[in-house]
Amino acid sequence: MTSSAVDNLSRLGITLPDAPAPAANYVPYVTVGNMVFVSGQLPLVEGKLSVTGHVGNDVTTEQAAKQARQCAINLLAQLNSACGGDLGRVKQVVKLGGFVACADSFTDQPEVINGASDLMVEVFGDAGRHARFAVGSNNLPRGTCVEVEGTFLID
Amino acid sequence: MTSSAVDNLSRLGITLPDAPAPAANYVPYVTVGNMVFVSGQLPLVEGKLSVTGHVGNDVTTEQAAKQARQCAINLLAQLNSACGGDLGRVKQVVKLGGFVACADSFTDQPEVINGASDLMVEVFGDAGRHARFAVGSNNLPRGTCVEVEGTFLID
Amino acid sequence: MTSSAVDNLSRLGITLPDAPAPAANYVPYVTVGNMVFVSGQLPLVEGKLSVTGHVGNDVTTEQAAKQARQCAINLLAQLNSACGGDLGRVKQVVKLGGFVACADSFTDQPEVINGASDLMVEVFGDAGRHARFAVGSNNLPRGTCVEVEGTFLID
Repeated sequence: MTSSAVDNLSRLGITLPDAPAPAANYVPYVTVGNMVFVSGQLPLVEGKLSVTGHVGNDVTTEQAAKQARQCAINLLAQLNSACGGDLGRVKQVVKLGGFVACADSFTDQPEVINGASDLMVEVFGDAGRHARFAVGSNNLPRGTCVEVEGTFLID
Repeated sequence: MTSSAVDNLSRLGITLPDAPAPAANYVPYVTVGNMVFVSGQLPLVEGKLSVTGHVGNDVTTEQAAKQARQCAINLLAQLNSACGGDLGRVKQVVKLGGFVACADSFTDQPEVINGASDLMVEVFGDAGRHARFAVGSNNLPRGTCVEVEGTFLID
Repeated sequence: MTSSAVDNLSRLGITLPDAPAPAANYVPYVTVGNMVFVSGQLPLVEGKLSVTGHVGNDVTTEQAAKQARQCAINLLAQLNSACGGDLGRVKQVVKLGGFVACADSFTDQPEVINGASDLMVEVFGDAGRHARFAVGSNNLPRGTCVEVEGTFLID
């Protein structure tokens, strides 16, 4: 089966990483019926964060948006695993929850999380348009500047 | 069909605003089966925030609770759109997620989010009683003091 | 019907508290079909917090993890009520959302929320493994250092 999502990833030059194994007594995703709940993803690349800090202090909005895009890539890696390797089974990106570690004066959380939202639409088209929230946090795990969780509908 | 929800809104003197159009690659709500996931809403009135700042510093709990009520009005506007203009289709307010931009010493997040919770019960009665969380944030989009997202069951 | 979850709680020496009554116009949980959405729980014991403050300042990671475990006990008390007193009906812990009140430099939110995640697996075994997020907050209700919400699948 040809998947336009897979074609889109290829066109974007994105190779999905292996879905990271669970680090504790939680799992990367849980599937209930046709809904997949994916754990909050950090923008890890080969297990490492390339950027840490607070947006508005030591990280720019542009840098953070790229980190959010990496969170989205990691969400897709988990989703791909949930779909048994067939992203063509994804019917809808339902919801993203975005947390941005930021300065107390920073108010552009939406622009940061757009890095994740945009990738979903680039990969899935209209099925990638989702509900979301984007909020600030005074600090996040491992010093990441962004963490994104997601809920997806598959067939 | 008469909707008591619509009657209640009228009695409360609330005219639902037009549901704001999406500002980025996300949408105001996604419907999956009979569940509606509504994006985090700011207390915008005609596209503007009347209050910005941190509760416990430059915003009082009472002011913030009124802002949370406006978030709830905006959630209802989106929900009304999801229901094709018939709020009588709402079966249950399932969950609200409330984020409060606050001073590091502020601990009355529940009292702020009650502004949203109370409106749901005023409009839907017992069907308006929901699960929720209410947490603090060091800053939120556009400088709003409150953001509320919601999950709803419709028929 | 024998429930291994109940056996596990007994073996762990945990007596579930009465599920606290709602404090405002929200409810401790909402059931939609076979999904239970439980409100964010504080680590209350008999209505009181034994620890307040920010992890990384006046609370240690170990203390906070124990508080997260108490949040999980309170989630189970609510879930038990949702199941009509039969925890054997729980099919899957779907998702936990964990908020940690912390210093701006604190980055071990996952270690704190493990206190809740571990209990779920101790009680439900593999069915206790869940998706989750763990994030920081500059302050939480009543000064608690941790709040955890949960979504569960029951039969």
